[in-house]
Amino acid sequence: MVPHLITALTGPINELEQRILESLPAIERWFRLEWMEHTPPFYTSVDLRNAGFKLAPVDTNLFPGGFNNLTPEMLPLAVQAAMAAIEKICPEAKNLLLIPESHTRNSFYLLNVARLVEIFHQAGLNVRLGSLDPAVTAPTPIALPDGSSLTIEPLVRTRGRIGLKGFDPCTILLNNDLSAGLPEVLSDVHQQYLLPPLHAGWAVRRKTKHFAAYEELAKKFAKLLGMDPWLINPLFAHCGEVNFTEGAGADCLASNAETLLAKIRRKYKEYGIQEKPFLIVKADAGTYGMGIMTVRDPKELADLSRRTRNKMSVIKDGQEVSEVILQEGVPTYERINEAAAEPVVYMIDRYVVGGFYRVNAERGVDENLNAPGASFVPLAFAGSNQLPKPGAKPGASAPNRFYMYGVIARLAMVAASYELEATDPDAEVYE
Amino acid sequence: MVPHLITALTGPINELEQRILESLPAIERWFRLEWMEHTPPFYTSVDLRNAGFKLAPVDTNLFPGGFNNLTPEMLPLAVQAAMAAIEKICPEAKNLLLIPESHTRNSFYLLNVARLVEIFHQAGLNVRLGSLDPAVTAPTPIALPDGSSLTIEPLVRTRGRIGLKGFDPCTILLNNDLSAGLPEVLSDVHQQYLLPPLHAGWAVRRKTKHFAAYEELAKKFAKLLGMDPWLINPLFAHCGEVNFTEGAGADCLASNAETLLAKIRRKYKEYGIQEKPFLIVKADAGTYGMGIMTVRDPKELADLSRRTRNKMSVIKDGQEVSEVILQEGVPTYERINEAAAEPVVYMIDRYVVGGFYRVNAERGVDENLNAPGASFVPLAFAGSNQLPKPGAKPGASAPNRFYMYGVIARLAMVAASYELEATDPDAEVYE
Repeated sequence: MVPHLITALTGPINELEQRILESLPAIERWFRLEWMEHTPPFYTSVDLRNAGFKLAPVDTNLFPGGFNNLTPEMLPLAVQAAMAAIEKICPEAKNLLLIPESHTRNSFYLLNVARLVEIFHQAGLNVRLGSLDPAVTAPTPIALPDGSSLTIEPLVRTRGRIGLKGFDPCTILLNNDLSAGLPEVLSDVHQQYLLPPLHAGWAVRRKTKHFAAYEELAKKFAKLLGMDPWLINPLFAHCGEVNFTEGAGADCLASNAETLLAKIRRKYKEYGIQEKPFLIVKADAGTYGMGIMTVRDPKELADLSRRTRNKMSVIKDGQEVSEVILQEGVPTYERINEAAAEPVVYMIDRYVVGGFYRVNAERGVDENLNAPGASFVPLAFAGSNQLPKPGAKPGASAPNRFYMYGVIARLAMVAASYELEATDPDAEVYE
Repeated sequence: MVPHLITALTGPINELEQRILESLPAIERWFRLEWMEHTPPFYTSVDLRNAGFKLAPVDTNLFPGGFNNLTPEMLPLAVQAAMAAIEKICPEAKNLLLIPESHTRNSFYLLNVARLVEIFHQAGLNVRLGSLDPAVTAPTPIALPDGSSLTIEPLVRTRGRIGLKGFDPCTILLNNDLSAGLPEVLSDVHQQYLLPPLHAGWAVRRKTKHFAAYEELAKKFAKLLGMDPWLINPLFAHCGEVNFTEGAGADCLASNAETLLAKIRRKYKEYGIQEKPFLIVKADAGTYGMGIMTVRDPKELADLSRRTRNKMSVIKDGQEVSEVILQEGVPTYERINEAAAEPVVYMIDRYVVGGFYRVNAERGVDENLNAPGASFVPLAFAGSNQLPKPGAKPGASAPNRFYMYGVIARLAMVAASYELEATDPDAEVYE
């Protein structure tokens, strides 16, 4: 069940693991207190990087698309968490409308949709699928690789409510990250729960806002554990007016890269880390592993090839990149069969429900793994392996490492909650 | 993982299973609505009997003592449910005081206590054990069969609060069913949560009150599913002033037995069941499988042997039996390796977290299995097997049967919630 890991996890991470295990009741209480004041996102997945000397989230997804990568053993946890989520939001609900990505025939993604339907059906809801694609004008069956099928239906918008023909949901669950913009049909929904909220979509959301919130929380959390927040926090900077095709914003990129690399170098020196620091430069909005490059030297940014410019300039749904995040690169020192691997943790409501390794044999330890060639190996998050084993030698126990991953992933989830509060256009402001 | 079951499950139960599966969203919604109005017991275990023609709870335990019989795979579900429970009751809590049974050196029971400590530790609490036994005057280590140990400490009662030396808990969790009476040290606790409440203990609780509440709920639930409530409800009667040693109350027992057997006979006739009806006569308060007999003919009750009188007259902690429940006997037609088996479902808060079969090769299908010779086989409640598989042939799918067991067990849990409300001595009455 536990994938064979070749890890060089010594020093700071083992200390972190030990401290996290020893502080388990304090950590869980800290989360409980956070959730008394803040609302967790409906569901979240977090990409983590474990460098041995540092463990940090590098991407927090509020429209997770890989539920199919969780093992069947993890399903009861997901169903139980979904029951808890529904009970809070809409206990009297009968119907859930799920809006998946449009235009996709990607069979992995469709299996994710099927898995979500299964989870929310088992949790006790009638689940149907609605499409944002105007080309879907009648119920349309889509075949799945396992021989089953899904039916996607056109949305029906009445004045106050969104539904399908003969189907009036209490909650509308988006599994569409709205990269293409905010669709008219979803605007001004006040009688139903639309989750995640529209401003969680990439049309509005910015990674830098997320990591700013995460940085604050990492500091608070590090204080609780008596450690350096850098051990769990990836440094970052922002450039606001970049146009890769025309070369605009190159100065900002270069100077920010310089400053950021200098900061990382100082930290590496402090911890005696013999690596060469690097940055990940990526679109501040967006996902799907598009528009991402590794930068080892600021000069690389001044001298981009046409191919890189093109690659960096456009992301999913043809959206142009104008805002950029420069993020401290966290190398991954986890391997599965010699391929670079990074853990991805899945959560529903406040609960860790599973996870997997994203593995990519075609990529280096300092590169984005969410790229062609990626495959997925379930993490032994479920079963007893999710639970920490006190007394095991630090770094030697997969369950303890997975518990640590769950803690850092939940920290990123709390950050997403703060981020969504701070960016909520409908928030009431008390002054 | 799924124990080999030899079952003769045809007819009504298969129809029930099918109806339960088809009605999954309606059933889960029904439970959600119940939990909006009522508070689930902190934890519950329910003994079920599946007769093929009928599935019914026969005992609902509010101080479950077999958490050690759940497999490690089921633990994450228990931890997640415990987190949900704590969050509702006392989110700011650091400490949980667990009060186990006194005087017990039963190593199975001690493993149950160790498992509870583990579950609540993992859920994020500092857990320590306090004893009601006045002989415990200093922290006392108790060795466990697995080589680990537990430390049990004397309770410290200050005016308003219960704790241990240097340990002030927010919640006091009883795993002691208070058969011996309500201890003075637990009275008038108003600043802390004492769970389950004192009136859930056998010093106050009565099985007939529970099954009266269950009967009402079984009727409501059967209406939802459009079926005969008898298929899930064991008939019962009550005798209030029985003294087995002196022979008092024999008339009540005999006449109630006569009436009850006649009712069952009519039902058997209605469904074409070719069995001989029987009753289980047991103490209306109490547990541990003590003071229980099978009655096939009312005459047996008039003509009890001295041995049976002695057996029936005293239960756990030497308490005399004066109130008796006569319960419709539900034969079990589940077998593991040819031994009679009955499912036991474990719940924390409102969630099914696991279960097992109680198996007893020395007992018949119409006898109490909670007796010397009993062993425990984990039910495949956890893993994906907890989740129903739509489309499977009724009666042919273990997961579907387990889902059905979880539904009926939860129905008994809702009944316990109603029962505790109705018997709450501190309840505010609105007239």
